[in-house]
Amino acid sequence: MSDVKKVVLAYSGGLDTSVIVKWLQETYDCEVVTFTADIGQGEEVEPARSKAQALGVKEIYIEDLREEFVRDYVYPMFRANTIYEGEYLLGTSIARPLIAKRLIEIANETGADAISHGATGKGNDQVRFELGAYALKPGVKVIAPWREWDLTSRETLMAYCEKHDIPVDYSKSKKKSPYSMDANLLHISYEGGILEDPWMEAEEDMWRWSVSPEAAPDQPTYIELSFEKGDIVAIDGESLEPHEVLAKLNQLGGDNGIGRLDIVENRYVGMKSRGCYETPGGTIMLRAHRAIESLTLDREAAHLKDELMPRYAKVIYNGYWWSPERKMLQAAIDATQENVCGVVRMKLYKGSATVVGRKSEQSLFDESIATFEDDAGAYDQKDAEGFIKLNALRLRIAAGKGRKAD
Amino acid sequence: MSDVKKVVLAYSGGLDTSVIVKWLQETYDCEVVTFTADIGQGEEVEPARSKAQALGVKEIYIEDLREEFVRDYVYPMFRANTIYEGEYLLGTSIARPLIAKRLIEIANETGADAISHGATGKGNDQVRFELGAYALKPGVKVIAPWREWDLTSRETLMAYCEKHDIPVDYSKSKKKSPYSMDANLLHISYEGGILEDPWMEAEEDMWRWSVSPEAAPDQPTYIELSFEKGDIVAIDGESLEPHEVLAKLNQLGGDNGIGRLDIVENRYVGMKSRGCYETPGGTIMLRAHRAIESLTLDREAAHLKDELMPRYAKVIYNGYWWSPERKMLQAAIDATQENVCGVVRMKLYKGSATVVGRKSEQSLFDESIATFEDDAGAYDQKDAEGFIKLNALRLRIAAGKGRKAD
Amino acid sequence: MSDVKKVVLAYSGGLDTSVIVKWLQETYDCEVVTFTADIGQGEEVEPARSKAQALGVKEIYIEDLREEFVRDYVYPMFRANTIYEGEYLLGTSIARPLIAKRLIEIANETGADAISHGATGKGNDQVRFELGAYALKPGVKVIAPWREWDLTSRETLMAYCEKHDIPVDYSKSKKKSPYSMDANLLHISYEGGILEDPWMEAEEDMWRWSVSPEAAPDQPTYIELSFEKGDIVAIDGESLEPHEVLAKLNQLGGDNGIGRLDIVENRYVGMKSRGCYETPGGTIMLRAHRAIESLTLDREAAHLKDELMPRYAKVIYNGYWWSPERKMLQAAIDATQENVCGVVRMKLYKGSATVVGRKSEQSLFDESIATFEDDAGAYDQKDAEGFIKLNALRLRIAAGKGRKAD
Amino acid sequence: MSDVKKVVLAYSGGLDTSVIVKWLQETYDCEVVTFTADIGQGEEVEPARSKAQALGVKEIYIEDLREEFVRDYVYPMFRANTIYEGEYLLGTSIARPLIAKRLIEIANETGADAISHGATGKGNDQVRFELGAYALKPGVKVIAPWREWDLTSRETLMAYCEKHDIPVDYSKSKKKSPYSMDANLLHISYEGGILEDPWMEAEEDMWRWSVSPEAAPDQPTYIELSFEKGDIVAIDGESLEPHEVLAKLNQLGGDNGIGRLDIVENRYVGMKSRGCYETPGGTIMLRAHRAIESLTLDREAAHLKDELMPRYAKVIYNGYWWSPERKMLQAAIDATQENVCGVVRMKLYKGSATVVGRKSEQSLFDESIATFEDDAGAYDQKDAEGFIKLNALRLRIAAGKGRKAD
Repeated sequence: MSDVKKVVLAYSGGLDTSVIVKWLQETYDCEVVTFTADIGQGEEVEPARSKAQALGVKEIYIEDLREEFVRDYVYPMFRANTIYEGEYLLGTSIARPLIAKRLIEIANETGADAISHGATGKGNDQVRFELGAYALKPGVKVIAPWREWDLTSRETLMAYCEKHDIPVDYSKSKKKSPYSMDANLLHISYEGGILEDPWMEAEEDMWRWSVSPEAAPDQPTYIELSFEKGDIVAIDGESLEPHEVLAKLNQLGGDNGIGRLDIVENRYVGMKSRGCYETPGGTIMLRAHRAIESLTLDREAAHLKDELMPRYAKVIYNGYWWSPERKMLQAAIDATQENVCGVVRMKLYKGSATVVGRKSEQSLFDESIATFEDDAGAYDQKDAEGFIKLNALRLRIAAGKGRKAD
Repeated sequence: MSDVKKVVLAYSGGLDTSVIVKWLQETYDCEVVTFTADIGQGEEVEPARSKAQALGVKEIYIEDLREEFVRDYVYPMFRANTIYEGEYLLGTSIARPLIAKRLIEIANETGADAISHGATGKGNDQVRFELGAYALKPGVKVIAPWREWDLTSRETLMAYCEKHDIPVDYSKSKKKSPYSMDANLLHISYEGGILEDPWMEAEEDMWRWSVSPEAAPDQPTYIELSFEKGDIVAIDGESLEPHEVLAKLNQLGGDNGIGRLDIVENRYVGMKSRGCYETPGGTIMLRAHRAIESLTLDREAAHLKDELMPRYAKVIYNGYWWSPERKMLQAAIDATQENVCGVVRMKLYKGSATVVGRKSEQSLFDESIATFEDDAGAYDQKDAEGFIKLNALRLRIAAGKGRKAD
Repeated sequence: MSDVKKVVLAYSGGLDTSVIVKWLQETYDCEVVTFTADIGQGEEVEPARSKAQALGVKEIYIEDLREEFVRDYVYPMFRANTIYEGEYLLGTSIARPLIAKRLIEIANETGADAISHGATGKGNDQVRFELGAYALKPGVKVIAPWREWDLTSRETLMAYCEKHDIPVDYSKSKKKSPYSMDANLLHISYEGGILEDPWMEAEEDMWRWSVSPEAAPDQPTYIELSFEKGDIVAIDGESLEPHEVLAKLNQLGGDNGIGRLDIVENRYVGMKSRGCYETPGGTIMLRAHRAIESLTLDREAAHLKDELMPRYAKVIYNGYWWSPERKMLQAAIDATQENVCGVVRMKLYKGSATVVGRKSEQSLFDESIATFEDDAGAYDQKDAEGFIKLNALRLRIAAGKGRKAD
Repeated sequence: MSDVKKVVLAYSGGLDTSVIVKWLQETYDCEVVTFTADIGQGEEVEPARSKAQALGVKEIYIEDLREEFVRDYVYPMFRANTIYEGEYLLGTSIARPLIAKRLIEIANETGADAISHGATGKGNDQVRFELGAYALKPGVKVIAPWREWDLTSRETLMAYCEKHDIPVDYSKSKKKSPYSMDANLLHISYEGGILEDPWMEAEEDMWRWSVSPEAAPDQPTYIELSFEKGDIVAIDGESLEPHEVLAKLNQLGGDNGIGRLDIVENRYVGMKSRGCYETPGGTIMLRAHRAIESLTLDREAAHLKDELMPRYAKVIYNGYWWSPERKMLQAAIDATQENVCGVVRMKLYKGSATVVGRKSEQSLFDESIATFEDDAGAYDQKDAEGFIKLNALRLRIAAGKGRKAD
């Protein structure tokens, strides 16, 4: 294990990754570079500096990646109306490629030959980190302590801390959430604890970002979202950067009890797991994006997007953001968004985000054709007969040969 | 036009199809057979008898098809988690194949050589009726009066009624809804009127089946839905037939403001149209079915279903229920439902239908593997390394050859 | 019919389209602009000028489009390894969008308000011409004489010629091929005659571009094809323009009996038809392109291309080249071709085009990993265990719950 | 390693698997059961008995599985026109699920708790054997000696033989093929040796089942293949069992130089490898099946099959025969084959298998409609106008709004 000279660690500043710093130093006899990013998880990142210093780390990276995260990862993903397994908005999945990319870039800058992360050996995140890392730096060494060490119980971990003088904030530790959580600007996730029984309803005090629908205001909130090329660029007429849009929608959604989700999902490593998610802004964005597409996107392009979407979602969920197939799918998706512009009006009320209006200068809705009233010849109803007759031809021939249709 | 001897008409008993009866008799000099079905539209069908008799119709079919409709059409469709264009639950589309089938069966029974319907030349329903008819009886003649006649304005229609002594209920006519509506056990739809401007919000008094979320009870309702092979067979432990399930869920959903939808959709005939839908029961069923599948269905089968679903939805929306491709897709879908059994617990509250628990004897969720706690060796975390390494191999080789991943 | 002022006709110079010139002038009392293109059909186009002049045409377009045809249509299509229904290389389909585009451009230049073509009402070509025309100029009037006139038999056509002094080359007419043919640089097609019985073998003297495999040389021909970004840029080291490549490969393939095809295909208008095709160069190109991709293209990108290909083929076959869905698919395809560079060596022999070698500087084939010999640690065989174990996990869990795999 | 009591080994009787018998006995101190199957590899299987006995094996299974192999694996796969990566007919892949199934059944019969095979850690076969085994018996222990032992060079292997008195047929060993080969009734494969350079052409004396096209007869051979429900049931009118069909077609194809293939393919474990294959009968079957489908299968079912095929091929190639997704796809495929009946006439000549005729009582080819001659009103050409107009509507609306189609 002596061949690692320097390792870049995705460092949260919390207990687990602090232990990892020490364990890496000790086990690999190597230098550790810490990398801590603000991707909107809602916790200060600056405190990670002193903690890292206290652990003897000399190269400390602390970065605000919120803008890049939403602009280059969340927004492209939402152009595809991406949902995994019909429900999940991929809040954790979409943050990993950016972390992987920065880990590798920092490794290149600091001359490190390895990277490390605090994800367990059962989850998807290890896969996402490592696939990204290998794709970006094929010779990199990846160290996943949770797959290697024997500190697998709280007791052994605590003993390790005591032995190595790693400060444990016991007060915090005691009131520690019983859930395993992950947060960024797109969502917060909860796993473990009573959620390990899929029949048990999540407790109300688990949720952190949203009020319950019951506790939300009795009056609905109406908002207008402006789109340019498939991306939201303004709320109620106010221009905002992507990460500002998402932050604002999280606020609006959370206040109205929007975006809670409770599912059982299929992990890439082969098991089912139960997770709860809060994605207030994302839930609104998805609905709104579909609405503006419904007005401005060609039918066949829309249908093809819908057919490709589950594949695209799986690619991201499984950790293949940095892959040729993701590039290929993104090219197809982005090629459709040129005219996805306009405004969507939504009603937010006690858990629901409902589209109530949409308009666009690029609208393909043609009232003069669609109308139930006299259309002045815009559409010749007689065309329908030939349309139906030829579409039915293969069916008629088959039936004429005695084939049964039912 | 003299070669039609007898025509079976899909007859609602309303003014428009009453006019069609007379118009067919007059234009084609043929006998008219009327067919009126209760598919849960919420109006009495028996009154259609005397109306038809008054128009001189001798062969009158009035049937209760609710059971067959839900069992053989709605339920199979829901096994696929079917949604058209990300939103629409296909409430109108799924009723048409059954009507088409009965029209043809009655034509065969009565020796009729033609069928007729009251759908316009702009919509999808003409396509669905006629594709079904041609697929089931290739030589049938289809008469679509709205594509043929010149009674295209209310005035000409009224003049026709007066001339032919067709009774018009003016009181009803006056308070007539400004919307074009269609209803069956799965949904009620609204088009036209102010909806022709997609920016205008639907008026509250348009909706008929559901209270507004605001007017719904302040306390949530919890229900438990039992599944066998992908179909709901009981609510709160009470066994029900499919159409009883749907009726009951419509009641529960409607009471809680669930199932309203406002969309712009792409019609098969090439135009975009705006429609509003109420699908209270269906909205609950869809969520619940996904939830029970999440626990009991294999990952890859689930993902393949998700990829095929948009295609399946399009097949139904476009009117190809009676087609080889629908059969083929149905075979694939049904092959996955053997073990989709268990119970889903849902919370209904002011417009939201939320899954809060699911359990099954066929569950593939393995708590001993998924747990964050000690799993006693059920899963070897070291396997993940090889898994990731080989999945990354193609990416590493490409990166090693200088290919850029970003 | 008086509202057409000027019409641009796709004019071959042959009898049928000469009749159309006259018929358009007479029926619509309008000016006719003729457009004749050399797309490699192997016949002189210049003679069309005097024929058109003789018919009183004042605006005559005669153009050599071979370069544009292969570069902008054939080559992009081959990047997708496009085959319709497992067999057909789309030789006719791919030429139509270019003709449609030029018809519309000429209409715009000459101020014409209509276009016309000589395709029948049963085939795919009418659809391809007209979809293209409408997509490029939505208000254009399309005149399809074969769907309108009553000159549907040879006799009535000849009578029309006599009446209007249209010269008929009787000697040519007599020895006229019994087949309906269409040719361009990519292929020549045959339909009709004895081919209308799918059990009858095509006669040897029908084929025009290739010798029979039996008559081909007894010695194989070896060639090397050089690719850049998915396109062939040189043959045996000699740089060539796309249309020169195709012409050369047609020669080489035809000499060796390569590229004959005899199929029953499904037309977009709903019927099956039997056609024979000669595509000597295209057959070689397809094989070679797959071979260079096999060496240089990522696995998942390749597989996704394979899954999208039938859709892409259908889009082109059905006439939707000028559509958002084709653009979208093309974007996905083109995004994969950056590194599809290298050389493929092929053996041409009595009807077969066989790949015997391929090499590339962008090769992803890694001999040091793939070798059966000692790989010096390039690949750790132990990784395979974890890979298999986790890929099997969902299957093991299901089997453990008593699910049957067979 | 002492917890294995009895292991069932896929035993060929050759040197490598003989070494494995001894190595298993020694390493695991367990009983070994050998299983040797005739799946048409063209070598006697009975000699394996005495070899196994000499190694001290008490339970010896030797079986003729040719009938089951072709009927239950090869035939279902060919119903889908299955090809991997556009070229490969999956000859090796399709044999593995049957071997895996028998290994597990024998394990159950003999009370064995483990299975073993001689596949290397770099290839696909280990994956196919093991995924099948785990799917059929989730708790089984799999022993893959090539991933475990240190006998990785010919020298160490020979030393092991000498030490353990395992007879080595040196004469055979000397003239041993330089290629790694695998054979069954569907194909024979070659890897390794000079093939590890993808630019090198395979040597003529490598090929074993087919003559070269050059050496094939100068006269073509014509055959007629009869299909029932998608499967070949007779050749030239003579009824044959599936495995007899394949054996006969191998003979006919091999005699005419048909079925050689030379490709670079993407392995599931992440690397590209170069392989040569001879699949004489399969090559004929694929072409013939497509031909009979072209006449008898509905267009949309055929197209959906084509879109699903690459997925189905990948499922089989990757080793997921015993999976829910394969079942699901097979259900879809089989649902289309009811009417795939009739006769295909083929010409075999110097490397080419060409379809020259096809007929069927279930034919959907309607000569009266398809004809270029007068069709007596079977098809109304005027229907085409409405068909095109409505299919163009979305394109016209988009163009009318100023969208560019090119």
